[in-house]
Amino acid sequence: MSHLLWQKPGVTVNQNIQRFLAGNDIVDDRHLFTFDIQASRAHAEGLHNIGVLTALECRNLCESLTRLDGLFQTGEFILDERFEDAHSAIEAYLIEQHGDTGRKIHTGRSRNDQVLVASRLYLRDALKQLAFHNRKIAEISLQRAESEAMLPLPGYTHMQRAMVSSAGMWWAGWAESFIDDLGLAESSIEWINANPLGSGSGFGVNMPLDREHTTTALEFNRVQVAATYAQLSRGKFELQALAALSQSLLDLRRLAWDLSLFTSAEYSFVTLPSEYTTGSSLMPNKRNPDLIELLRASYAVVAGARTEIESLLSLPSGYHRDLQFSKGPLLRAFHHGLAALALVPDLIDRLQWQPEKMLAAIEPGMFATDCAMELAASGVPFRDAYQQAAKATLPSFGANPEASLKARVSLGSAGNLGLDILKKRLQEFP
Amino acid sequence: MSHLLWQKPGVTVNQNIQRFLAGNDIVDDRHLFTFDIQASRAHAEGLHNIGVLTALECRNLCESLTRLDGLFQTGEFILDERFEDAHSAIEAYLIEQHGDTGRKIHTGRSRNDQVLVASRLYLRDALKQLAFHNRKIAEISLQRAESEAMLPLPGYTHMQRAMVSSAGMWWAGWAESFIDDLGLAESSIEWINANPLGSGSGFGVNMPLDREHTTTALEFNRVQVAATYAQLSRGKFELQALAALSQSLLDLRRLAWDLSLFTSAEYSFVTLPSEYTTGSSLMPNKRNPDLIELLRASYAVVAGARTEIESLLSLPSGYHRDLQFSKGPLLRAFHHGLAALALVPDLIDRLQWQPEKMLAAIEPGMFATDCAMELAASGVPFRDAYQQAAKATLPSFGANPEASLKARVSLGSAGNLGLDILKKRLQEFP
Amino acid sequence: MSHLLWQKPGVTVNQNIQRFLAGNDIVDDRHLFTFDIQASRAHAEGLHNIGVLTALECRNLCESLTRLDGLFQTGEFILDERFEDAHSAIEAYLIEQHGDTGRKIHTGRSRNDQVLVASRLYLRDALKQLAFHNRKIAEISLQRAESEAMLPLPGYTHMQRAMVSSAGMWWAGWAESFIDDLGLAESSIEWINANPLGSGSGFGVNMPLDREHTTTALEFNRVQVAATYAQLSRGKFELQALAALSQSLLDLRRLAWDLSLFTSAEYSFVTLPSEYTTGSSLMPNKRNPDLIELLRASYAVVAGARTEIESLLSLPSGYHRDLQFSKGPLLRAFHHGLAALALVPDLIDRLQWQPEKMLAAIEPGMFATDCAMELAASGVPFRDAYQQAAKATLPSFGANPEASLKARVSLGSAGNLGLDILKKRLQEFP
Amino acid sequence: MSHLLWQKPGVTVNQNIQRFLAGNDIVDDRHLFTFDIQASRAHAEGLHNIGVLTALECRNLCESLTRLDGLFQTGEFILDERFEDAHSAIEAYLIEQHGDTGRKIHTGRSRNDQVLVASRLYLRDALKQLAFHNRKIAEISLQRAESEAMLPLPGYTHMQRAMVSSAGMWWAGWAESFIDDLGLAESSIEWINANPLGSGSGFGVNMPLDREHTTTALEFNRVQVAATYAQLSRGKFELQALAALSQSLLDLRRLAWDLSLFTSAEYSFVTLPSEYTTGSSLMPNKRNPDLIELLRASYAVVAGARTEIESLLSLPSGYHRDLQFSKGPLLRAFHHGLAALALVPDLIDRLQWQPEKMLAAIEPGMFATDCAMELAASGVPFRDAYQQAAKATLPSFGANPEASLKARVSLGSAGNLGLDILKKRLQEFP
Repeated sequence: MSHLLWQKPGVTVNQNIQRFLAGNDIVDDRHLFTFDIQASRAHAEGLHNIGVLTALECRNLCESLTRLDGLFQTGEFILDERFEDAHSAIEAYLIEQHGDTGRKIHTGRSRNDQVLVASRLYLRDALKQLAFHNRKIAEISLQRAESEAMLPLPGYTHMQRAMVSSAGMWWAGWAESFIDDLGLAESSIEWINANPLGSGSGFGVNMPLDREHTTTALEFNRVQVAATYAQLSRGKFELQALAALSQSLLDLRRLAWDLSLFTSAEYSFVTLPSEYTTGSSLMPNKRNPDLIELLRASYAVVAGARTEIESLLSLPSGYHRDLQFSKGPLLRAFHHGLAALALVPDLIDRLQWQPEKMLAAIEPGMFATDCAMELAASGVPFRDAYQQAAKATLPSFGANPEASLKARVSLGSAGNLGLDILKKRLQEFP
Repeated sequence: MSHLLWQKPGVTVNQNIQRFLAGNDIVDDRHLFTFDIQASRAHAEGLHNIGVLTALECRNLCESLTRLDGLFQTGEFILDERFEDAHSAIEAYLIEQHGDTGRKIHTGRSRNDQVLVASRLYLRDALKQLAFHNRKIAEISLQRAESEAMLPLPGYTHMQRAMVSSAGMWWAGWAESFIDDLGLAESSIEWINANPLGSGSGFGVNMPLDREHTTTALEFNRVQVAATYAQLSRGKFELQALAALSQSLLDLRRLAWDLSLFTSAEYSFVTLPSEYTTGSSLMPNKRNPDLIELLRASYAVVAGARTEIESLLSLPSGYHRDLQFSKGPLLRAFHHGLAALALVPDLIDRLQWQPEKMLAAIEPGMFATDCAMELAASGVPFRDAYQQAAKATLPSFGANPEASLKARVSLGSAGNLGLDILKKRLQEFP
Repeated sequence: MSHLLWQKPGVTVNQNIQRFLAGNDIVDDRHLFTFDIQASRAHAEGLHNIGVLTALECRNLCESLTRLDGLFQTGEFILDERFEDAHSAIEAYLIEQHGDTGRKIHTGRSRNDQVLVASRLYLRDALKQLAFHNRKIAEISLQRAESEAMLPLPGYTHMQRAMVSSAGMWWAGWAESFIDDLGLAESSIEWINANPLGSGSGFGVNMPLDREHTTTALEFNRVQVAATYAQLSRGKFELQALAALSQSLLDLRRLAWDLSLFTSAEYSFVTLPSEYTTGSSLMPNKRNPDLIELLRASYAVVAGARTEIESLLSLPSGYHRDLQFSKGPLLRAFHHGLAALALVPDLIDRLQWQPEKMLAAIEPGMFATDCAMELAASGVPFRDAYQQAAKATLPSFGANPEASLKARVSLGSAGNLGLDILKKRLQEFP
Repeated sequence: MSHLLWQKPGVTVNQNIQRFLAGNDIVDDRHLFTFDIQASRAHAEGLHNIGVLTALECRNLCESLTRLDGLFQTGEFILDERFEDAHSAIEAYLIEQHGDTGRKIHTGRSRNDQVLVASRLYLRDALKQLAFHNRKIAEISLQRAESEAMLPLPGYTHMQRAMVSSAGMWWAGWAESFIDDLGLAESSIEWINANPLGSGSGFGVNMPLDREHTTTALEFNRVQVAATYAQLSRGKFELQALAALSQSLLDLRRLAWDLSLFTSAEYSFVTLPSEYTTGSSLMPNKRNPDLIELLRASYAVVAGARTEIESLLSLPSGYHRDLQFSKGPLLRAFHHGLAALALVPDLIDRLQWQPEKMLAAIEPGMFATDCAMELAASGVPFRDAYQQAAKATLPSFGANPEASLKARVSLGSAGNLGLDILKKRLQEFP
């Protein structure tokens, strides 16, 4: 067990309790370490700007911080149980390297400050990765939508065969969905991109900290002004980041559901590359689409994490140790969720349609709506057209899936997919 | 029980089942009725633009729709169990008024279309109300922050007395929090403000619907292009709207927690206007802050609604009747959540501090951090300063709360609250 | 707005606030009214036993309470906004009927007492209904399991065709599932069946209340002893009742999923009676299994309610007004959940298999496991048997579904369903 | 990456995908390994009973399984990424030791079987630990209730001072609460204690497996009969186990809330042993009750796990890979929840009351209810008594806390705590 910075003589420490208090902190903190170092560097520069550190002290600390980061990246420095947490580890390293100068790094900040700023930088980075995956998925979906606009696919509502649809329409739906998810990831970045460093333990400090400098140095959009709000935003910002992540995984769940059906023997609309399936330990005849199922299941990880964080937040204002438990679920959700999304582009790029099976599943009744609309367009009141079409009448073009798709000219349908609008929206994101 | 538009001869209808299928639809639909009428008007105009309705037919239908809305607002038309749902009620009214012309209103659209567009308009309206309340709360908080910047209030972490804070710092935290909530409400409006009307039952229609017109007429920012996506967005958009709402209620929960403590005998920092408290049926001595408690509890309604909707959404793409159950929790959450938020401005405007109680709770130890910082600023390495300050040394200004606040000059602390920055952000919202 | 029993002169009452405080209480309380009356009667008898009420006073109050219950049942007495809540309504009625004697009914109890005991009686009653439905579903499932043991049905894992199964095996699974649900309902009744009446507002009273009498009179299994615990159990007991309910709806969700697939064109294994399907407003060709979908969706209502209640419970001990909000979701969940379960027996009794479709979906590969097991039984190490069977070898009985089922003799498989064991368990429940 | 037992020639394996499929399985499986070995031993014996294994083969396999368990316990055998999962590791070890005999162990079972039975044994063991902690907490609470029955403690409702209560009443509430939790843990054990081994992959096998033997050998109460139900119960049983766990943590959350208040400067009713508090990195004056806060926060871990599992379960019947994700949250919740509960007995045993602070917080108004009850007992109608008592009248014994407690004679109050009833219930559990 590590040395505790706040330890006082005569205070007993119980190992069971310390272990419970520490939890997985040190392992979790590996995800935050680099960000904590970045923020410490900016803090040192800020302290120099207000005269707390000399130029030399500042340079020494910053160089050591950069070195520590390098050692961490290469695995030469390991963040483990020797340290209480990432914050203590950094300070210990600086003290070891620079003695009293190292002891100055914590001037004007608290561990709350450090957790907040490191978590914020992590959140921003994670949301940027989310944006990246959303964009990739949208791009591939758009490409396939374009080339498969007229490939007939049965359209279902209530799991019942409803109307002729097309592979292109199916892809266009996912494209627009992930474009929206990209938009949400971007606006969530904008929302949380505020600098909490300099709020002390939630009450500010009696020093003219250079918060403008740290805001710029860490590329925040704005300072998170009120010292009390820095604390209030803990958990709050995490929840919106998870809300953005969960939207992508919600879409992925529905996409995976479609693929789970489409790869069943009953549908047989889609075949997957062999590495996306696994065998059975009992049944030698099986090839199971396990990956599809785990992608579908991935939403659960994020939903669980959100419940976990949300359950912590029934608290008065100010810091409470309860908030420490928001770290684990956040990291877990993004680690898992981003890994799931990263697998999607290749999967959707390479899955193959089975056109003859899709065609075989299109029945005459699926043209009834087209027929009713034709009648309505010709002046028959829709309710009467509906009754006539129900009697298995066909539209003018007959039971012809391609003709049905071609005739579907309302914006967003096969005959008029409007992909240019979607491409334009996609390009407008940074 | 109402006449069912899709009813066919020979099909048995069981009342128990019909009741279960209907649920609270007709009551819930009262919240959507006006929006459904608006959308029907836009749809009629669109049908006219593409020649399905003559100018006269269109005018007649639009006038009747406007009239129906008026009758509904005044209570002359009651949406009740005579109708299957709002959509059927509107069509029935138009058929009653205009015969065959009324039968044409459903041309080129599905009930899914109607539900989607009416719900979308409702969501937008509800989010605008949310934005309004967030702004109000932020404004009052800013005002009080300004006038009470230097009113000493004990600052707590871990429920323990930590440092001198001020009423102004407390208010500034809520101000910035609700400004962020306003920002989230606005970006959520922007995110969902897309027109689903014209997507049919998720596969478009074989008619050149004038989606551009309906988009403009209903003041949407953009068309929701892909017909399949209109269906995929059901539940999805509701969840982000609830995410925005829940952020405000999360903040309100913490605010109410503070007030619940501050109005206890142990703290006695705050007194509430008498209408915010109630009596006890058993204990004649009590005045209970029931409203505060119910405001705190209001987050639960939104959290429950979100779980309810989210639990529905593990489905393949396309419409499924499961999605009908997203309506109830959405309406419940916004109805309750907005009612709670509407009570906050008056409450926070009129609550009164008890300065002498607040002062009495400030102990010498609460100046230790100030002292450590002073030492650090004078060149003592912070870790040494920390050890010295722990020995009950006082800062240069002594155990003086006002002086402590004045010395707290980091941006966002009492000596430098930065309210102008917050005011500017608030003004930048539409 | 009603007269408030705790109202004091000079205290302002604001209608907006009162409306928020009241919420749906008066409507919700209609579900609790009869139980409140029962408990009031027992309380009056208890007061008589300790000499607070004379025999005559007690008889008068009890008769009036019985009368009030009758008036409520017939609709002559309506519980509406004239009253603050059910508790006040009962007291007001007794005062109106008996003057000062009526004013004595609240002796030795608090409204908390009343809410707790009425809610407890409601919970017990709701759980008994749950047990009833679970039993019904299990019984019908057992019957069909018995008669359809050898009707071949493709067995799926990962949505892929795996082995030959049978309708009987499918039914047996649901039977055992709902028997377990019955067991959980029963043990949950036992768990919560404790009398909270007599705990005052959580601190007892300075009167020798006859808690033994009220326990017996209200048919509780035991007294809930500690006055403080009566308060602590609020929400707690509700959560376990919802846990029991949610297990049934979880099973129903999976059952409905199966039926949703089985009634699709792709599977076509099952046809539903016509009243279980509805038509489409746009697509004249459709018959949609809406009821199946809403049964599947019903789990969401309970999940939402549980989140809602659970979100309230991060509180210190003692009563808080937050707890009032546990009433609405509890009533909603049971009202909806029990209604859903009540529809299941008829549905599962009358759904019809399509044997030729089920048979047509059975492929030779589905006998591979049988084959591997035969080889293993004959002494081939299983891993080798697995490799051989994978080469499309058939078992000794060939590609014969009925023979496969007959050979499946492990307990719980088609050849040895073990229904007697399940029937015996079912009979052992009260 | 490990060798995959189901691997076929010509099937590509992608490392990224394999890593995602594997997840944390191998680490999670360390918690299940011993249980898997136990079940494998019982399975081998069962195979011997039906003649698939000779006595020698059976003995050899069982001895190796026992040896493997020993090696695992001592750390000589490490379950790591060399293996796909625990199940494969066991089989690989047996093949390595016994060649073809090892290849026979999987005869008549599937990996699903193995996961189910190992998880079931884990669940049972975890629930037994839960029962143990509940009992410990109840016992200590009962002891302290007994000795502190008459120690005055202010009683609160709505966070407002309400009536005189006592430390003993406070403890009695927790005692009864954890006795109920013990009861729920026990009935949950009974509910899930059914043997799934022998259900194959959910469709049984064509072998007369000796399920009776494995049921007895693994100390199950009953066989889980229907092969299909074994699959349906996955997730279902986990949810009830979590429901039982969450009840204890829900109580702990409220207990921790009380202690969080009672250890604040404002209340100062309780002092904690020093190892239950920690220091602040910024504020040298602070001693923070971090452990109390993390105990309070521990409910969140279980709530998150339950949401995570529940979110997976919207599936048709039969095994789906989604269910794999139920393992992680289950293990996490029990690991964390049991660790939290294990810390409670010592904490509650050693916390110290500050009687003079508790007494100082008792105000004259807190005797008003006692007074009203006295008046009511003497024949004044309660509503009038209530009005009189509100005018600051005192009861006959004056403003005397001890007298108030002594007069509180209703069962479950300080004057009549009824601890014998609680002790008796506690003893009745196994």
